[in-house]
Amino acid sequence: MAELERYGHGGDRLTAAERFGGRPEEFLDFSSNIHPLGPPPRVLEALSRALAGERPQALASYPDPLSRRLRDKLADRLSVSPEQLLVANGAAELIDLVVRVFRPRRVGVVHPCFSEYERAAHLHGCSVVSVRAKEENRFVPTEEELRFLVMRSDLVFLGCPNNPTGLLPPKPVLERVAAEAARSGAVLVLDEAFIDFVPGGEERSLIHRLSSCPTTLILRSMTKFYALPGLRLGYAVGRKDWIERLLDHKVPWSVNALAQVAGEAALEDEEYRRRAERWGRAEREELAGWLRQVGAVDVFPSETNFLLLRLRAAKGRGASGRLQERMGRRGILIRDASTFPGLDDRYVRIAVRTRRENERLIAALRKVWAEWGGGGEG
Amino acid sequence: MAELERYGHGGDRLTAAERFGGRPEEFLDFSSNIHPLGPPPRVLEALSRALAGERPQALASYPDPLSRRLRDKLADRLSVSPEQLLVANGAAELIDLVVRVFRPRRVGVVHPCFSEYERAAHLHGCSVVSVRAKEENRFVPTEEELRFLVMRSDLVFLGCPNNPTGLLPPKPVLERVAAEAARSGAVLVLDEAFIDFVPGGEERSLIHRLSSCPTTLILRSMTKFYALPGLRLGYAVGRKDWIERLLDHKVPWSVNALAQVAGEAALEDEEYRRRAERWGRAEREELAGWLRQVGAVDVFPSETNFLLLRLRAAKGRGASGRLQERMGRRGILIRDASTFPGLDDRYVRIAVRTRRENERLIAALRKVWAEWGGGGEG
Repeated sequence: MAELERYGHGGDRLTAAERFGGRPEEFLDFSSNIHPLGPPPRVLEALSRALAGERPQALASYPDPLSRRLRDKLADRLSVSPEQLLVANGAAELIDLVVRVFRPRRVGVVHPCFSEYERAAHLHGCSVVSVRAKEENRFVPTEEELRFLVMRSDLVFLGCPNNPTGLLPPKPVLERVAAEAARSGAVLVLDEAFIDFVPGGEERSLIHRLSSCPTTLILRSMTKFYALPGLRLGYAVGRKDWIERLLDHKVPWSVNALAQVAGEAALEDEEYRRRAERWGRAEREELAGWLRQVGAVDVFPSETNFLLLRLRAAKGRGASGRLQERMGRRGILIRDASTFPGLDDRYVRIAVRTRRENERLIAALRKVWAEWGGGGEG
Repeated sequence: MAELERYGHGGDRLTAAERFGGRPEEFLDFSSNIHPLGPPPRVLEALSRALAGERPQALASYPDPLSRRLRDKLADRLSVSPEQLLVANGAAELIDLVVRVFRPRRVGVVHPCFSEYERAAHLHGCSVVSVRAKEENRFVPTEEELRFLVMRSDLVFLGCPNNPTGLLPPKPVLERVAAEAARSGAVLVLDEAFIDFVPGGEERSLIHRLSSCPTTLILRSMTKFYALPGLRLGYAVGRKDWIERLLDHKVPWSVNALAQVAGEAALEDEEYRRRAERWGRAEREELAGWLRQVGAVDVFPSETNFLLLRLRAAKGRGASGRLQERMGRRGILIRDASTFPGLDDRYVRIAVRTRRENERLIAALRKVWAEWGGGGEG
């Protein structure tokens, strides 16, 4: 495993500082897929209020075990019933929890995908059935590939959009696959951690078709779009009896009180939401264009806030890790995507950030590429 | 289960407000065992600093998956190696994690005890072996009872001090039981969530004998003594290879960044620690004396910050729940201890709080007791 991802994921500034020198907060982080606008102002205000006084309630009392206030606000926003919702300590807790509760013998995944799906499966003693999505399909699984998985697994994880590709299958495909899962009794877990970044994402989701997809469960994150990864906050949407089963198995109070406060405030910050949605597509396409100009990488299309890149020239073994290292020495963290099964050491992933930050990435990449001998072997 | 403990534990103000009316923050909470001095001032300062600016690092970056800064400070304070320490999302995450990782067939517990031990055992498909500690021993298990458990289980949970009794076995007993566990290969999990409240607690603990107790694991909480239950923070201390195994199975980033900041600041607040330690024994004995004067309850001895009480008069079925309800209507939450296996509806548990708050508890109890017909049937 690449050294910067020694704990399995991007965004690990402390390891970056140990590795490249400098202070953790000085790195410009393109390795984790967080909204570059930073946390909603209302969240910061709400947290300050929650911490005011000598004995702030949010610290000095147990968190509500059900996150009822946040759950009810989410239910309202999403037009689902509160009993269809489970608030959790990030999507990571939910991924682990669904495997624990549904006890599948075989877990299905599409490579490349978020590594926690397989990690959870293996930790709970499940075997893993995988299909490798084809590069010529931009790594989006076809309907046939998804049907294969659903028929051969008891529980399937599918990123919608997927990490590290930023793409998701068309809605009619998802609907037919969900119907197939219902017929075969497989649990279909759609991981929508990045759906808020997809223009019209709410319409692309099956969230309002759950009544006709009785074995589909949707996982979402509140820490990516709202730029709060330090807080850990996610939720699941599904049928009531399943939500109840998940709750029965969840560690009590796993969502801390400040995360609950932040989640409630984030939902109320309509101004942030509008601003955060305006950012996005334009920046991504601009950055993709610049990246193509540098000539170092091929850029895969994406519908969300990160881009999968493939090094153009043959740079030998561990090329993605060496690019990461060279960029890291310049204070810029990128994700070595060779750790995703189904990819190899030609792939890296970067987040889309603000215009100025994207410019810094491009400038650094140009320099690294020139030092590295451009398109030649290096 | 008593209605106020519908989610299994005390301190649930939201349910109290639903049940008794009023606002959640108006209840005086004697039902959860949190230090009444409130959070250390340094923690509040550190959290404010961590939230300053438009893009506070603690929100906008992933938490360090290992909580390395906090872990190293803890290692220093406890004189153990950082590799012997695992920081987690409260003791609750650790209880679940040890059952998950060690996969015991039989889990041993002493009744009465914290309900999460059995809950975790059942969720993971283990059977439970229990002994009921005798009331004449103040519910402290004897060496024979503990040896019995260790011989017949693969993993034993023992509260040191125990919840709801506030007592722990003498250190020589613990040492011999730990030695027996090492011989038989059983994992001995000492839950020291409340050890900071015990005068001389660090000397009562086996934390510095772990090298001669190779199958003993210690769990601690940072949210009770430091009055931060809203944040969720605990840790395990044990042998390095076990800590590594636990880490391999833990959900990544389960400890949020603000909890890490708070934990680091709490350890630095020596002034708070001195103040918090001074409070304690005197208040507890004062409160126990007052409670005896009211005449409503027998008071069990305790070495920590809560007291187990037994209603004196026969008040019929559900007496503990009805006392809880009558106190709740007066704005005071107490713990119905009938939910602890091994106890019944004559038992309640209360935390020791500040002098003024304890006086309010006593005044309310006097009134409730008078209304209820004093020592007669009610």
